[in-house]
Amino acid sequence: MPRYDFRTPRLFVDAPLAAGGEVALDRNQTNYLRNVLRLGQGDAVLLFNGRDGEWQASLASAQKRTLSAAIGTRLRAQSRPADLHFVFAPLKHARLDYMVQKAVEMGASLLQPVITRHTQVTRINLDRMRANVIEAAEQCGILAVPRVADPLPLERWVPEPDRLLVFCDESADVADIGDPIAGLASARSRVGAPIAVLIGPEGGFAEDERVALLKRPKVVRIALGPRILRADTAAVAALVLAQALLGDWRGPTG
Amino acid sequence: MPRYDFRTPRLFVDAPLAAGGEVALDRNQTNYLRNVLRLGQGDAVLLFNGRDGEWQASLASAQKRTLSAAIGTRLRAQSRPADLHFVFAPLKHARLDYMVQKAVEMGASLLQPVITRHTQVTRINLDRMRANVIEAAEQCGILAVPRVADPLPLERWVPEPDRLLVFCDESADVADIGDPIAGLASARSRVGAPIAVLIGPEGGFAEDERVALLKRPKVVRIALGPRILRADTAAVAALVLAQALLGDWRGPTG
Repeated sequence: MPRYDFRTPRLFVDAPLAAGGEVALDRNQTNYLRNVLRLGQGDAVLLFNGRDGEWQASLASAQKRTLSAAIGTRLRAQSRPADLHFVFAPLKHARLDYMVQKAVEMGASLLQPVITRHTQVTRINLDRMRANVIEAAEQCGILAVPRVADPLPLERWVPEPDRLLVFCDESADVADIGDPIAGLASARSRVGAPIAVLIGPEGGFAEDERVALLKRPKVVRIALGPRILRADTAAVAALVLAQALLGDWRGPTG
Repeated sequence: MPRYDFRTPRLFVDAPLAAGGEVALDRNQTNYLRNVLRLGQGDAVLLFNGRDGEWQASLASAQKRTLSAAIGTRLRAQSRPADLHFVFAPLKHARLDYMVQKAVEMGASLLQPVITRHTQVTRINLDRMRANVIEAAEQCGILAVPRVADPLPLERWVPEPDRLLVFCDESADVADIGDPIAGLASARSRVGAPIAVLIGPEGGFAEDERVALLKRPKVVRIALGPRILRADTAAVAALVLAQALLGDWRGPTG
């Protein structure tokens, strides 16, 4: 009987998951389990696919080129994904990887890159971003894997009419627009409506971008404190406030 | 006349800063300015020392082994540091570096490592931590450089009697203890009292540690949402909530 604890490897697979089934793992997963973690036949893993919840499984077929996993019992039912869009100006390499991980941990359901006037990165490796999303979901115990959308110019990104845009304006001063808790609390009447959190690039938004954003029908503009935050810190900060005031940090009763 | 913008290198120095003075830069700073940024005589830098505010300066003595900087005018007066202690179980290497950077960005005034039952790291390189604090302060526009305290066992860490302990309990469920905004709002009557935010190690707190923490005189226990957060994400999340509800994100009028 394999042992399961918080160190048990957690793997995303594409295949359907059901009791008694067997799932083939890919070469990267096999390599990681065999050569990094030194695991083999009979060892415990957890499986999820974003649709069928989370399952206990044990490694099998140690002789084959790639491992497979025999599915045991279901540990958790599939949770309904949050409806929280994270809209962001892409950063370079490691910083982007990090920001993507953070957005997944914070429960974003969609990652939407937008190209703004001051965005310095225009070529985006979406495959790398998707791989990062899956890795973050594996590590953070998330059942619903967020979708990564194709990049859009900011002005062409138009959310659905009822989605509340939380516009994090790094040039905003709390002295002028008030604290972010009050700003978001004023949007509480729209709780239940889906949210999009928008984070700009280093250097912030251009003035005409700011004006255009504030003209959108459902928007709340917030400041993120008196210090300059790196974009990945700003991402966590904004998503924490959105989740705590309007999202799933408020507990099951809302 | 040198140009100053958000890309201007910002350097921490030990020496006093006053108009007309000149400050010797150290070998690391010289190497970074000369060989990485390709800067030399006449180029603009910003200087701060944690006491005298932030100053424009221009590089001088290009012939010498190390650069010096001629001090120009003061851009910002020294700000009063926030009184926000960040108390944390140390992590390994890169994750610790990252957590330290985040705590500085979020405005912590003291970094206090504590060794808990499940802390896996016991040897802590305080010099590296202090260097990280300075680098983060340089990059994030912070004037008051947080202090790094010597590590203590958790049970020997005793804050001043009036300091509010914000105990982030990763095993806490929002369904049981309510949302973190409500938890912190209930502590709002203590606004003005200084705060300590406590973040545990991977694997959380031991049950007797939890019991002992909850017996402390001024404590508020909060949950950080329904997902597992990495410790550095939890650090940003907890500090955002503390700053937004009780700290300096509320604007000058409080």
